[in-house]
Amino acid sequence: MAANRLMSDFPPAPDKLVTLANWRKSPYSAWGFRNVRQLLPTAEILASGHFQSLETDLRDIGQTSFKGRDGREATLASALGSSNTDACVVLRRGRIAAEWYGNGMSATTPHIVFSVSKSICGALGGILADRGLLDPDAPVTSYIPELAPSVYATCSVRHLLDMTVGISFVEDYDDPDGDVIRYRYAVGWDPLPAGRESPDLRGFLATMKPDGKKHGDVFHYVSTNTDVLGWVYERACGQPLAEILSQFLWQPLGAEKDAYIAVDKHGAMRAAGGICVTPHDLARFGEMIRRRGVANGRQVIPGAWIDDINSSGDPEAWARSEFAELFPKASYRSKWYRIDREKNVLLAIGIHGQYVYIHPEAELVIIRMASEHTPLDPDSALGWRRGFDAIAQRFL
Amino acid sequence: MAANRLMSDFPPAPDKLVTLANWRKSPYSAWGFRNVRQLLPTAEILASGHFQSLETDLRDIGQTSFKGRDGREATLASALGSSNTDACVVLRRGRIAAEWYGNGMSATTPHIVFSVSKSICGALGGILADRGLLDPDAPVTSYIPELAPSVYATCSVRHLLDMTVGISFVEDYDDPDGDVIRYRYAVGWDPLPAGRESPDLRGFLATMKPDGKKHGDVFHYVSTNTDVLGWVYERACGQPLAEILSQFLWQPLGAEKDAYIAVDKHGAMRAAGGICVTPHDLARFGEMIRRRGVANGRQVIPGAWIDDINSSGDPEAWARSEFAELFPKASYRSKWYRIDREKNVLLAIGIHGQYVYIHPEAELVIIRMASEHTPLDPDSALGWRRGFDAIAQRFL
Repeated sequence: MAANRLMSDFPPAPDKLVTLANWRKSPYSAWGFRNVRQLLPTAEILASGHFQSLETDLRDIGQTSFKGRDGREATLASALGSSNTDACVVLRRGRIAAEWYGNGMSATTPHIVFSVSKSICGALGGILADRGLLDPDAPVTSYIPELAPSVYATCSVRHLLDMTVGISFVEDYDDPDGDVIRYRYAVGWDPLPAGRESPDLRGFLATMKPDGKKHGDVFHYVSTNTDVLGWVYERACGQPLAEILSQFLWQPLGAEKDAYIAVDKHGAMRAAGGICVTPHDLARFGEMIRRRGVANGRQVIPGAWIDDINSSGDPEAWARSEFAELFPKASYRSKWYRIDREKNVLLAIGIHGQYVYIHPEAELVIIRMASEHTPLDPDSALGWRRGFDAIAQRFL
Repeated sequence: MAANRLMSDFPPAPDKLVTLANWRKSPYSAWGFRNVRQLLPTAEILASGHFQSLETDLRDIGQTSFKGRDGREATLASALGSSNTDACVVLRRGRIAAEWYGNGMSATTPHIVFSVSKSICGALGGILADRGLLDPDAPVTSYIPELAPSVYATCSVRHLLDMTVGISFVEDYDDPDGDVIRYRYAVGWDPLPAGRESPDLRGFLATMKPDGKKHGDVFHYVSTNTDVLGWVYERACGQPLAEILSQFLWQPLGAEKDAYIAVDKHGAMRAAGGICVTPHDLARFGEMIRRRGVANGRQVIPGAWIDDINSSGDPEAWARSEFAELFPKASYRSKWYRIDREKNVLLAIGIHGQYVYIHPEAELVIIRMASEHTPLDPDSALGWRRGFDAIAQRFL
């Protein structure tokens, strides 16, 4: 496959060379997304070294049919083969019903999950709150007084968790000179043009301004809120985020492999989008969410935190948001999308096609990793949602 | 300990902040050398997942006495505690006789070993030659024709292995505008000053010029030779160096943890100095060398390659070198120093105090990792050599 030829020679041919300047662009992303550590500074999220292999109970679901991205009927097998999918694992009752790998991926290759990182950090919040380390209702500035000059002066940790900060930030991934590109320079994900300077991530977060809306009223998706959340965790625990993730989540989960997270030039860790995990470990994580926070026979995330995701997302804040058109009957709580309010179907979403889909009634977890061309392709998101629902339907 | 406070707050205080600009300077190096992946792009060198824990047979050697760095009598315990030592492991007959950790290190924390990387790559060469993948006597340009305009046009792989290339390069780590700093910009180990440009590592290697001396005549320590060697391996195997190291060395060795290696902005891997390994795995590696290439009951490195290190180093090439004063009776072969030609004592050396010491007669392997202030401190090197010899003496 063409993507596998990337970086394959020494040196790679110019059109096969993946760099900091092109790693999120197609076709380079097919290599870049599974080799983030070769492009950026990263910190390890240590696994414990003790894990149980995932059991298999293979099901023939490749012919599952659904209306794909282009609105035409497709099978799961054909959709996976034609959509820049890097990995897809389907767990039914915790066992592998199907798995698929492309573009050089394997079950144990870490792949960046972008904003699925947010949902991982949202789950972590429940653990820290349960331990008394974090107060979700406390003001952000009780942890980070330096944010007093910013929009974060007046909001709570809960507003960060639920993405209801009244913040002025246009999350347009394609604007060549907007908030997002300044953010990327701050985190070091794009090369800084000659002569241009940038604050580091924490410095950038302190510049965020209000948009005039009341905190709590509107679901307003802004990545920096989750970076602030990760910073709050660090202050709350007195440890770097990678260590907190390891100690409270990755080790008790029984992850098979170390995960890792991108860091900026001064050690700030990208809670909003920089976590890289293996397909099997992301599946284990999804399965833990499905089991109300239980993994390895122990309660890792408090069950009440998962229940709260299902019960306390504000449908009105959602209805007022830019995302309401995409998923009309959803809500959002603690960094998780509840896309079906009747069946409590939960979704974690990352740009370029990363998903964790949890369908409790079908006892189903699906994870997908991808290197889709565009960061946010609503047609693709809707197609995959239909695909995941169709798989769930087979198990109902 | 003060070094442990580095990077401990969020953000760290300015005098506790470790960055690309200070990570090799004291005191920042005490954190930087065990967190290279948080500062640089890196590639993993995968372990197999199967390893045997090192057995222990503890010996009370802390009071071993020797003439230290300052020429005064010291004990091993006091020397370890006052020399920016990060880790020291003493294996006697393959079992841990003593181990010591400081500055936040543990048995399983990867630490950069600088030019000990060269010795690791030298051992790898024996494996590749044995498999018929590498011909040590072949011209470098038979693997890398692009080096024809450089000094490497006329030398063989063997000249790279033995550091006898007649190359013009002043390996002065303290010169603010010499060959070394240009080399550092090329590999991305120092921030590029505003307005300055640099080739990547491979581009830099192609600019190396001859010094007029005949290849093979003089041991002339130049790091770039080992980067070229790593590049030769990549061409010989058609794989990135990190994969070659994993497949042929790290997995068969039975390493406990993944190691990793620094990469430049275009994926070139730092064979000369960028490998980061854990103390226990470096001890396993040293023990394999001591056992003539055997680990886990199998011959990983050909015994003849180790024998050749002991028999074929050229004492005359050594006698003509800048290092002859430091270790008068040594020789150098396949990236290993043989510092005692009677007892075949082997040494691997990295800047800032990294060592692997192998004393066959005493059935002893010692590894030391450190964050010494100066890159190359001859007094310290001589002191530690006396210390290692004194430990060996106890077991003779």
